[in-house]
Amino acid sequence: MSTTALSLDPALLRARLDKARAAAAAAGVDALVIAPGTDLAYLLGATGQSFERLSCLVVTAGEAVLVVPKLEAPGYAAAPTEALGVRVATWVDGEDPYALVAGLLGDAGQVAVGDVLPALHVLALRDALPAARQVLAGPVIGELRMRKDAAEVDALHKAGAAIDRVHARMGEWLRAGRTEREVGADIAAAIVEEGHVAAEFVIVGSGPNGASPHHDLSDRVIEAGDVVVVDIGGPIAEGYNSDSTRTYAVGEPRDADVRETYAVLQRAQRAAVDFIRPGVTAEQVDAVGREIIAEAGFGEFFIHRTGHGIGLDVHEHPYIVAGNPLVLEEGMAFSVEPGIYQPGRWGARIEDIVVVTADGVEPVNTRPHDLVVFPA
Amino acid sequence: MSTTALSLDPALLRARLDKARAAAAAAGVDALVIAPGTDLAYLLGATGQSFERLSCLVVTAGEAVLVVPKLEAPGYAAAPTEALGVRVATWVDGEDPYALVAGLLGDAGQVAVGDVLPALHVLALRDALPAARQVLAGPVIGELRMRKDAAEVDALHKAGAAIDRVHARMGEWLRAGRTEREVGADIAAAIVEEGHVAAEFVIVGSGPNGASPHHDLSDRVIEAGDVVVVDIGGPIAEGYNSDSTRTYAVGEPRDADVRETYAVLQRAQRAAVDFIRPGVTAEQVDAVGREIIAEAGFGEFFIHRTGHGIGLDVHEHPYIVAGNPLVLEEGMAFSVEPGIYQPGRWGARIEDIVVVTADGVEPVNTRPHDLVVFPA
Repeated sequence: MSTTALSLDPALLRARLDKARAAAAAAGVDALVIAPGTDLAYLLGATGQSFERLSCLVVTAGEAVLVVPKLEAPGYAAAPTEALGVRVATWVDGEDPYALVAGLLGDAGQVAVGDVLPALHVLALRDALPAARQVLAGPVIGELRMRKDAAEVDALHKAGAAIDRVHARMGEWLRAGRTEREVGADIAAAIVEEGHVAAEFVIVGSGPNGASPHHDLSDRVIEAGDVVVVDIGGPIAEGYNSDSTRTYAVGEPRDADVRETYAVLQRAQRAAVDFIRPGVTAEQVDAVGREIIAEAGFGEFFIHRTGHGIGLDVHEHPYIVAGNPLVLEEGMAFSVEPGIYQPGRWGARIEDIVVVTADGVEPVNTRPHDLVVFPA
Repeated sequence: MSTTALSLDPALLRARLDKARAAAAAAGVDALVIAPGTDLAYLLGATGQSFERLSCLVVTAGEAVLVVPKLEAPGYAAAPTEALGVRVATWVDGEDPYALVAGLLGDAGQVAVGDVLPALHVLALRDALPAARQVLAGPVIGELRMRKDAAEVDALHKAGAAIDRVHARMGEWLRAGRTEREVGADIAAAIVEEGHVAAEFVIVGSGPNGASPHHDLSDRVIEAGDVVVVDIGGPIAEGYNSDSTRTYAVGEPRDADVRETYAVLQRAQRAAVDFIRPGVTAEQVDAVGREIIAEAGFGEFFIHRTGHGIGLDVHEHPYIVAGNPLVLEEGMAFSVEPGIYQPGRWGARIEDIVVVTADGVEPVNTRPHDLVVFPA
């Protein structure tokens, strides 16, 4: 039931709201219905949480209204609603918040609902506005959020430096005889110590667990010879996230194919990063690293996309994935994180966040990419 | 990226799946599309988390298929999919999971999507199945989940006893000179110590903050004379939640109206609980306490519904609210939590979870209801 409040200049927020309106108009969208979450934080400088009671920011050409249950309204006290010209409309249990929203939207033909709005509210709004067509607000707000401003880039660098400091300390915790969960608890504490407000995710995939990209933590005891994938991150106070993966070994890797395979991965990650500049597409970036891995015979073991945008969300637009023709622009920030996964044996992934610059990229993470071997 | 796995008898889960199919058929629903979350945990005994990649359990008359991104499939290894006859269908980045689901649904006319499924997936499924009508799965699964079986009632009692032990220790932490946040941190630790796996929510609303029902924690220093609303809970290992509120005073309340108002609240809460038995409706229960509070002149200060169902979710069906004609039945579990809030001064709430029995209720929480006054 906590509320996130970011200290953002109301003038900046007002500009975002204007841009959101313009992006909506350009997309043929008559109204935005934004649920609590990062889109709301981006536009309002604060967000509550979403429950079964409807809370949303309704943005039309004429006005912006924060619809919120009366008992959750105090949670938005930190939001500069007045400075933004956002009217607050409260409702109480027993009233129909969907009729309230419908009243605000009038005869809107196309209504964009926030990507995270739960079906519970999506379908109730659909029924309250039978003549309107629902589309997603994500692509509209994503058009803004994808292009980071200077303060956002600074925040990403700050988050990246913080997570780099955690990776730099990995030797304090990672050794044979400890469980992934024990190591993960130490890492989680360090993520906070080094400047995050929380450890959002901690993946310690040792030995065969490293072959499952979204494995988190288990009670497996790390053994000498294990390759260990460590993928960690979290938000800093500004709300922006870190996300960085390094692959370590505890003692010399037991599997004979590790060194050679890892070299291919390292080459692929580097080639993908080197390829990035304004004008190339997301799918091209994905293809560059993927081809190197495929040519080396590991294509079937790279089982996910190359990367994802990052900002207020750990995963956001742009997605660096086959089929995404998006042309990259200066200010876009995303991960480049190819991996090679050998089922039942080991896995490896190298992940840096990069920000697109005028002629290439600026990496947010700067830890070395070589396989670091700790004493067992 | 964690996955919840509950140790449930596959026979029990199979029976739930059969009942879900029957409830769907009775509601004219051809298919259920259940997102990660508590509905999925209820049916499958395990749940992952929902991200931008679609994961869902598709249940039709003929089959049940867990659609999951290949890289998240290992997270469901603990689910007894084989014993349940649930087929696992994986997809990889670049493939279209909505087309995959559409292929499973064939010419379904009415498709029920899980209440928590994000708009991102709801609208993509709508577009992949243009001939189908989307409705909510919540009411269908809610029909099952509302009626707790013996093991679920046991789990609620276990959770309730654990949170009662925390309230019993409140005097260790609550005193003048400490901030709400400091007290809240101690309570959160005790919630885990006393048998929960996490402190899901900790509200310490002191003085004027108590007048905001969903206030959580602030840096306000608790003063002598404060009334303090403490609303706390969390899940136990079985996945079931506790939720109980008591109102305390730190030294004799400074506001002269506290004792008399609190007595009204206490009477209202008691009357609502005493009224509950199979056959009465949710809205009648709400009205009983509300009338007592209104007759005493505090109607405008009771700004929320009387209660909410509880189980795998802290808030679930049935909602004890005006306009809900649901007839209560044995095995239903919900909170009874009227409150009176005096803006800018103080608030009070008394909340117990109760389970409907053959002829009344069995309270899950058993701490005394009197206003407990701690030394300042």
